[in-house]
Amino acid sequence: MKRFGNLILLAAFVATPVMALQWQALPDTPPVPKDNPTTAAKVELGKMLYFDPRFSSTGTVSCNSCHNVMLGGEDNRPVAVGVEGQKGGRSAPTVWNAAYLSVQFWDGREPTLEAQAKGPVVNPIEMGMESHEMLVERRLRAIPGYRPYFEKAFGSGDVVNIDNFAKAIAAYERTLITPDSPYNRYVKGDKKALTAQQIAGMEKFAKVGCIGCHSGGAFAGPAKPLGEGFFMRFPTFTDNPYVEKYRLMDDGGRFEATGKESDKHMWRVPTLLNIALTAPYFHNGAVETLDEAVRVMARTQLGKELPEQDVADIVAFLNALTGEFPKQTMPRLPATPAAVISDIKK
Amino acid sequence: MKRFGNLILLAAFVATPVMALQWQALPDTPPVPKDNPTTAAKVELGKMLYFDPRFSSTGTVSCNSCHNVMLGGEDNRPVAVGVEGQKGGRSAPTVWNAAYLSVQFWDGREPTLEAQAKGPVVNPIEMGMESHEMLVERRLRAIPGYRPYFEKAFGSGDVVNIDNFAKAIAAYERTLITPDSPYNRYVKGDKKALTAQQIAGMEKFAKVGCIGCHSGGAFAGPAKPLGEGFFMRFPTFTDNPYVEKYRLMDDGGRFEATGKESDKHMWRVPTLLNIALTAPYFHNGAVETLDEAVRVMARTQLGKELPEQDVADIVAFLNALTGEFPKQTMPRLPATPAAVISDIKK
Repeated sequence: MKRFGNLILLAAFVATPVMALQWQALPDTPPVPKDNPTTAAKVELGKMLYFDPRFSSTGTVSCNSCHNVMLGGEDNRPVAVGVEGQKGGRSAPTVWNAAYLSVQFWDGREPTLEAQAKGPVVNPIEMGMESHEMLVERRLRAIPGYRPYFEKAFGSGDVVNIDNFAKAIAAYERTLITPDSPYNRYVKGDKKALTAQQIAGMEKFAKVGCIGCHSGGAFAGPAKPLGEGFFMRFPTFTDNPYVEKYRLMDDGGRFEATGKESDKHMWRVPTLLNIALTAPYFHNGAVETLDEAVRVMARTQLGKELPEQDVADIVAFLNALTGEFPKQTMPRLPATPAAVISDIKK
Repeated sequence: MKRFGNLILLAAFVATPVMALQWQALPDTPPVPKDNPTTAAKVELGKMLYFDPRFSSTGTVSCNSCHNVMLGGEDNRPVAVGVEGQKGGRSAPTVWNAAYLSVQFWDGREPTLEAQAKGPVVNPIEMGMESHEMLVERRLRAIPGYRPYFEKAFGSGDVVNIDNFAKAIAAYERTLITPDSPYNRYVKGDKKALTAQQIAGMEKFAKVGCIGCHSGGAFAGPAKPLGEGFFMRFPTFTDNPYVEKYRLMDDGGRFEATGKESDKHMWRVPTLLNIALTAPYFHNGAVETLDEAVRVMARTQLGKELPEQDVADIVAFLNALTGEFPKQTMPRLPATPAAVISDIKK
């Protein structure tokens, strides 16, 4: 798979015309780690946990607060708002199709959805729980209504724990996929799925070089094994006014996670699926519109000033990456016992 | 209906034994105002609006944030948290079965669900929109995906307005009912629906005098025409330590809304349906457990110190007021356009 990915990358960089090889459909199902097979019981539990605000210190913030699955899988804000009105440092990435990505977070610091799910709950400016132990003892085990769901999903015994909490959420997130976009239907053979402008935009997306990084069915780079990320420097070209205007150098990117000089301003190449729904754009949410985001990317990553017609065509194409969203039932959450009422930060 | 209600009240005050007359089932459907008949199209739209955080200044708070229908219809917090982490002055009342109440808010200051729905959106510490005009212009009409839903619900023309916004939300809220509690099944003839302790508690609930105020199918007092409230003074007996301990005199109640001396510490009698799910208790959320709430009510409203067995039995009975919750589908919300992205408070 890695070799294959590199070939595509190479093909794209030499600005080929649209060819069958370089356009991939999103697979109907995302990869699933061997140690967490998806089951209906896990998905049901995971959805409950995902929507439950009681896993935040104040009882007000759930996974869905910032990664809203009723919208584009995030919050349409520059940066997210956590407990007590605190603002995060980066924009919430979409949960839709996160299951297809081989690393998680903007800086790719976690390899799996399971590992990702353990982060925000104990981040002091996100969900604000003091530790995983506190989360499990004072909230998860303290809500007795969860135990039967954990047992159904993971068997009996000591199953109400942080690993199964994360596994259930990840299993639910693997159902949050949108393989049915117009683009996907087009590459699978429905030649009417895209408008003429979208097809023109698709060709320009390749010719300009966007596809050099945003390749593959998720438009997030070549397929990689879970845990191995596809990173690029952003901004690559710094000799333009966008860098200051949108504060593109303020955040060290992957460097903040690894401390390695070579990781400075390196970022995971984000998916473009449903990109029309996830404004404002970039890690700091500094760019409000998709056309401006296209201009910024062309200039900072490819050193190009695009004609406005190209911007419009590429934006039209990007709109074809919006999928159909699966219908979902609403979870019911188990009752809140006195111990949790008293533990919730007033 | 009013005469009938008064008769029940009278019967209850003289501490009668349990009789058929005084125990009413919750009607299968709530009253519906003539100018807002419930339709499937309104309910669908209303559910979308109810879950949409973009009707708050910061894009983070929806109706459901504080009146969480996945839980007991509120947030299990003493007081709610609005935009920018601001705390409200009173505890969020449950939305479940609010449709049966003849006035809304703790102080009954609004007559209908329609009128209520217009309040929190423009409350600076709740959803924080500057005015209804701003809400409609900068958010509701600015999201073009809402128009077809408004037209389906209200016809064509100038239908995207604040009144229809409120009507749709109210129509949805009229579906948020739980007529299938064990208590309800019991009074409809299923004598096995309650445990022996719950039946004992039911008798004590009447004998002690709780039913004097908490009468009717919603346990919120006698049925009244929409807009006419059933109010009681709380606390009535102030010669006890609970008043200071739980700060029961700090809030003027209905007086804060009307400015009338006679309304000081008057409160709408709240429903007891699903009361086991809505801790912490009272207008300020100062009491964390249902047994303590029963002790406080007996002492402050009836001048009685209840034996612990009576408290336990009454709590068992109150648990029988928890209903079955209707299964719901999750709404999908229309895409956020650039105008809204740019209007959202950073």
